[in-house]
Amino acid sequence: MSGQNGQAPAELLSANNITALFDSVDAFLFDCDGVIWKGDKLIDGVRQTLDVLRSKGKKLIFVTNNSRRSRRQYAHKFHSLGVSVSEDEMFSSSFAAAMYLKVNNFPQENKVYVIGGEGILEELRQAGYTGLGGPEDGEKRVQLKSNCLFEHDKNVGAVVVGLDPHINYYKLQYGTLCIRENPGCLFIATNRDAVGHLTDLQEWPGAGCMVAAMCASTEKEPIVVGKPSTFMMEILSKKFQIASSRMCMVGDRLDTDILFGQNAGCKTLLVLSGVTTQSTLQDPSNNIQPDYYTNQVSDILELLGQ
Amino acid sequence: MSGQNGQAPAELLSANNITALFDSVDAFLFDCDGVIWKGDKLIDGVRQTLDVLRSKGKKLIFVTNNSRRSRRQYAHKFHSLGVSVSEDEMFSSSFAAAMYLKVNNFPQENKVYVIGGEGILEELRQAGYTGLGGPEDGEKRVQLKSNCLFEHDKNVGAVVVGLDPHINYYKLQYGTLCIRENPGCLFIATNRDAVGHLTDLQEWPGAGCMVAAMCASTEKEPIVVGKPSTFMMEILSKKFQIASSRMCMVGDRLDTDILFGQNAGCKTLLVLSGVTTQSTLQDPSNNIQPDYYTNQVSDILELLGQ
Repeated sequence: MSGQNGQAPAELLSANNITALFDSVDAFLFDCDGVIWKGDKLIDGVRQTLDVLRSKGKKLIFVTNNSRRSRRQYAHKFHSLGVSVSEDEMFSSSFAAAMYLKVNNFPQENKVYVIGGEGILEELRQAGYTGLGGPEDGEKRVQLKSNCLFEHDKNVGAVVVGLDPHINYYKLQYGTLCIRENPGCLFIATNRDAVGHLTDLQEWPGAGCMVAAMCASTEKEPIVVGKPSTFMMEILSKKFQIASSRMCMVGDRLDTDILFGQNAGCKTLLVLSGVTTQSTLQDPSNNIQPDYYTNQVSDILELLGQ
Repeated sequence: MSGQNGQAPAELLSANNITALFDSVDAFLFDCDGVIWKGDKLIDGVRQTLDVLRSKGKKLIFVTNNSRRSRRQYAHKFHSLGVSVSEDEMFSSSFAAAMYLKVNNFPQENKVYVIGGEGILEELRQAGYTGLGGPEDGEKRVQLKSNCLFEHDKNVGAVVVGLDPHINYYKLQYGTLCIRENPGCLFIATNRDAVGHLTDLQEWPGAGCMVAAMCASTEKEPIVVGKPSTFMMEILSKKFQIASSRMCMVGDRLDTDILFGQNAGCKTLLVLSGVTTQSTLQDPSNNIQPDYYTNQVSDILELLGQ
């Protein structure tokens, strides 16, 4: 039986198929929100599962579209939840944005305007770049008076747009002017998620919301560095020297995590602990089928008989 | 010679063709920004031109995508610039949004959430509706804490999105929740202009920016009531009992004004006093050709030999 686009429907992860999956990969890539944690709470059994995977020699890598934190801040969050994860194992879209500039030899003397959080600014600094905007522009207001000119820095060579709960018209105009008026200015989106669980209880507009606003005013399309773009895979497979075919991407979203894994040539495992329900997965309108699905990360442990 | 899409290239308005245009129409429809005024300054010769057109029995109608003012506020602006225009002659996208609800029998007991300015709220009130949001929510902030639930009014049956220089995350989440969670909630856009001359000296992100943000978070497309949608034409041709083929739409934008005129079956006249330059008009990539073009509205007067 094959799915809508010729994809075989996802197999429920079971004691019968887990060994084949486990033996076929050297690394597990985990999304974070809805997979590892919900808000500030670790999902049951995650700590033990990660420990067992490590003890069996699997490389663990964490790949998140959430750009609000830097890798250092993510490592700190893991630590505060009692899980040991190093900065080197973290790949956030904030880091990916800085890496995109680096691998494309973006000049250090050019500045980067940020519509987004402190995580992006920190990653830019780590990569040796000067970021402008971000939280600092969160309370700025515009003057809509005759003969008032809104000035922007002509040395801004890239605008990075991510999730920004402090979005305002000042930032939209600043970013728009840079992209429209500074020759060659890059327009980089951390990701285009429609919504995200910024709090436990409900979803909130995601980075896709700010990115779409900028697309509309600039009439341009961005370079997307987060999932489902495979840019992060290029960086991480080079770093760890593991072929993507020997990786399993574990995530809760079909259109970012699972599509990213498929685009990159990984095995894919959907967990139902986040935004995707089993009925969404099995709805005829869904044309993204992971290789496997299961309720939550700790099922791996149980099915392995650990 | 015909243009890209088989459209004849625009003719320069001249003493040779103006009589034919003048005699073929009973009404002139004018866009405002870039046609009648720039910011708070009337464009040279506009007052005299409008006077002569009226004295020759032409009906004057003003059709603007700018939703920041109500019709009453526009009539007041005209008056302050020394031009007599009545509310009845004004068609703004703020009015169109309220009219859309009215002609579709939107229940008076349902509420309307507004991402936009006071003009929309005033038109809603005039039409007997209760608007929420708008300027009043401009300084509201969100709480992104665990167990904090962002509440929205379950009686909101429509969200109207227009240009909003006070856009923030509170409004984006409020509008998104109404559209995603209130059954049958309408999503209405006043217009989708990419940018607009909010000040004399430069362009600023337009309503299209706020509309795109909402499209991204709701994953829905809006009903657009402003130009180039012909919804306003349905209202105004019924009101004045003039066939659209006996009207000439005068505007400075190809993708809103001229396209609106063409979609509605009017004659079209582009003026170069606003956002469109002659080189944009004549660029091979432009596939919207008005019937005529001229520098500014007052050329009509001059060419008529008045």
